[in-house]
Amino acid sequence: MLCLKRNIAGKTAKESNKEKERQLPISKSGPITPIKQSESTTAVSSNNGAQSAPTTPVIPMQEEISHTEMNQINDVTDKLEKVVQITPDRIGQAIDSLMTPALVLDIDRIKANAQAMLKRAEEYGVQLRPHMKAHKTLEGANIMTGGTKRCISVSTLAEAKFYADAGYDDILFAGYLDKDKVEICAEIAEEIKSFHVLLDSYYVIELLRDRPLKDDKVWSVYIGVECRYNGTGVDPLDYSGVGLAVSLTSEPNIFFNGLYVNCENAYSCTDAEAVLGVGQDTANTVINFAKKLRYYYAYRKMKKHKVEFPHVNFGSTPVCSLPFEVMKNVTEWNAGSYIFYDMRNKTLGACNTDDIAIEVLAKVIAHYPNRNQLLIDCGWTALNYQGSQHGHGVFKGHPHLKITSMFQEESKVEDVRGNLDLGRYPIGTILRILPYNACATAALHGSFYIHSKGVVVEEWRPVKGW
Amino acid sequence: MLCLKRNIAGKTAKESNKEKERQLPISKSGPITPIKQSESTTAVSSNNGAQSAPTTPVIPMQEEISHTEMNQINDVTDKLEKVVQITPDRIGQAIDSLMTPALVLDIDRIKANAQAMLKRAEEYGVQLRPHMKAHKTLEGANIMTGGTKRCISVSTLAEAKFYADAGYDDILFAGYLDKDKVEICAEIAEEIKSFHVLLDSYYVIELLRDRPLKDDKVWSVYIGVECRYNGTGVDPLDYSGVGLAVSLTSEPNIFFNGLYVNCENAYSCTDAEAVLGVGQDTANTVINFAKKLRYYYAYRKMKKHKVEFPHVNFGSTPVCSLPFEVMKNVTEWNAGSYIFYDMRNKTLGACNTDDIAIEVLAKVIAHYPNRNQLLIDCGWTALNYQGSQHGHGVFKGHPHLKITSMFQEESKVEDVRGNLDLGRYPIGTILRILPYNACATAALHGSFYIHSKGVVVEEWRPVKGW
Repeated sequence: MLCLKRNIAGKTAKESNKEKERQLPISKSGPITPIKQSESTTAVSSNNGAQSAPTTPVIPMQEEISHTEMNQINDVTDKLEKVVQITPDRIGQAIDSLMTPALVLDIDRIKANAQAMLKRAEEYGVQLRPHMKAHKTLEGANIMTGGTKRCISVSTLAEAKFYADAGYDDILFAGYLDKDKVEICAEIAEEIKSFHVLLDSYYVIELLRDRPLKDDKVWSVYIGVECRYNGTGVDPLDYSGVGLAVSLTSEPNIFFNGLYVNCENAYSCTDAEAVLGVGQDTANTVINFAKKLRYYYAYRKMKKHKVEFPHVNFGSTPVCSLPFEVMKNVTEWNAGSYIFYDMRNKTLGACNTDDIAIEVLAKVIAHYPNRNQLLIDCGWTALNYQGSQHGHGVFKGHPHLKITSMFQEESKVEDVRGNLDLGRYPIGTILRILPYNACATAALHGSFYIHSKGVVVEEWRPVKGW
Repeated sequence: MLCLKRNIAGKTAKESNKEKERQLPISKSGPITPIKQSESTTAVSSNNGAQSAPTTPVIPMQEEISHTEMNQINDVTDKLEKVVQITPDRIGQAIDSLMTPALVLDIDRIKANAQAMLKRAEEYGVQLRPHMKAHKTLEGANIMTGGTKRCISVSTLAEAKFYADAGYDDILFAGYLDKDKVEICAEIAEEIKSFHVLLDSYYVIELLRDRPLKDDKVWSVYIGVECRYNGTGVDPLDYSGVGLAVSLTSEPNIFFNGLYVNCENAYSCTDAEAVLGVGQDTANTVINFAKKLRYYYAYRKMKKHKVEFPHVNFGSTPVCSLPFEVMKNVTEWNAGSYIFYDMRNKTLGACNTDDIAIEVLAKVIAHYPNRNQLLIDCGWTALNYQGSQHGHGVFKGHPHLKITSMFQEESKVEDVRGNLDLGRYPIGTILRILPYNACATAALHGSFYIHSKGVVVEEWRPVKGW
């Protein structure tokens, strides 16, 4: 239950870090389900860090699932059935023999990226909660969690169900709920050890209150905190967020597990120095917010409420790749696209070009000497449209080539230096494109071809939809 | 065989139009396969417009399909199996009860858009060859072809195989070939009556020469012609394109079926007047190019080559929605996104907002009063990123709302007038977004929910991949 255990109650960062050092490596223990007060009192007093929830609620019978809700659940299952199927057809082929466009992933780089992040989190004494949104595969999840199958974040309920079915037992659904998603979340929460949802409003608290979980389980929630520049969540400088968090201590069905800060604003930077500045500012802000909560919690504790100090989940690929001292004072790191990295992260200094594990293979299919252009068989259905100001990506080994127009299935490529040497790029030439945004590119593909040194070793199939 | 019949040889536009008038409505007759000279001589002399190919070639035995090629074919089939499955779960539901984000299509608008385009083409005396790239479904194809199941264009080989398997017998693969795609094309060409490929280089001619079709079939090709501003294909103002076309008359395995001009440049315009100007200019240019060809062809005919004057396939949704007189002088119209329309076409005056059949449903999931923002559960995985300067789309019935930041699964929305009246948009409110680019939006979804007056009547599943 490492994932849920850290920095609970008012431990200082130093104390927590010491404790964490003893607990690492992270694969040794598993997460637990938030438990009800009758049990949690003992758990807390035995100082094993188990979570508590205040005052035993009356658990109503589970309402019958409506037809609409059942359909939604079926639909998720539908999506899963389609991706679990694996075709080994291409194993052993050179990636150059794949029909283009094709998404290829370098397994050696993926493993190196994942290992480096696990090691970095370990060095900083924090639990890594990797985000699955970049790849949405079982294989990627296994690598990112270091084989523990624990402590992940997901961006859709289709992912949540996918990983729950695959035995992942500590999942944070890092999207805001609405009425139509509560029943599916409840089913997952009732099925696996630890399922966490995100909220930043009383509206969601009411939804959770109206759908108590079976078997004495309680909802485990993170409160989303705005990262000041461009995030979602409660304003950490405003007391309304504190009010929301404190109100959770009176909810018998809900356990307040932590704060969640997606430091997405790091992507608005243009270099590593700016990432550091934005990251430090954001981390300090959320830590100050957590301190405010601690004050109110201490007060409520005196009033005989059972409350614990929450996790602080903080991160994004740029800040977790370029961590700073303050990041030792949070309890969980949250990052996802580092499994692939991409040109967006390269621009920020969060990775080198050689770290980028994701490529789209495209072929030269036409020459236009009069226009100094060539055409490739890869458009926005295979590479995605983002990063147009950066040519949507970079041609590996050919940094002077740039996509200047993108169509549905084709793109025009020019030489930024002027004259394009078409003799160097005969029709049929395979070009490897490092995408600007890895997540948006991967989201377009139903099959990922996994290679080691240019030979296909696996095919991964992501879960799709919502 | 209407699709292949029109404007063959040097018939004038007027003659052709008269002939077409007699042949309409278009559902009466079907396309034919290009046939070899031994048959075609009779066919041509009987003046029924059948295509001819010069001098009987020696047909080599079909080479054994390599392992790689077989895998590629299997892969296409894989993709098909997954989309043919239909789940009727949601039939009868109100679209408002769908889990968001969801792609919904108004079947009444789709039918009206398709009918209007068929009628327009009929009035102009041209064959409509609708492009499947926007929807990639059997249901959409049936509606766009007026139930004839004939004369379509596709953007991927996955689509080509999908429609060939479904009985479509006149398909143009409107992408440029490379070596890895020739074998799949050959299989389809050998399987269905008329399969056409696109080329703009001697490289592809060589590929086709090296892979003769079985059963005395010949390759039917269109030559891609650049639309002067931003297209792909041969330069219509340059004689190298003429040389390429004329060289085809000496290829025993290849029948030159026509010119293909995707008037994509219309999308660079900002209003209907500009579309008209660009469209007329492009159409006139390609017609002049066709005239040059006619001159050279007449010369070669004297030299006892069997040659026919080719089709001129011209179009794009904006120009086919706002056609002009010169468009009577081409033989086929090519357009695809008109089945849905979108805000991009609306901006060009090619449709009204009420014609747009595609919407992404999203829910309000958070309020940020301090920032005058709300959050919806729809990001670039559901709506796509294109059109950022236009807010990626428009909120139906709420034109003052605008997406100002887009994330993977969420977007922030503001009121362009300043203060956002959050009271008008409680959490849980469903908003309907008309996308900027319908094709890019549809490409992100595995299920389309088809509704009539807000009630789901069908679920369509597109073919995916390449």
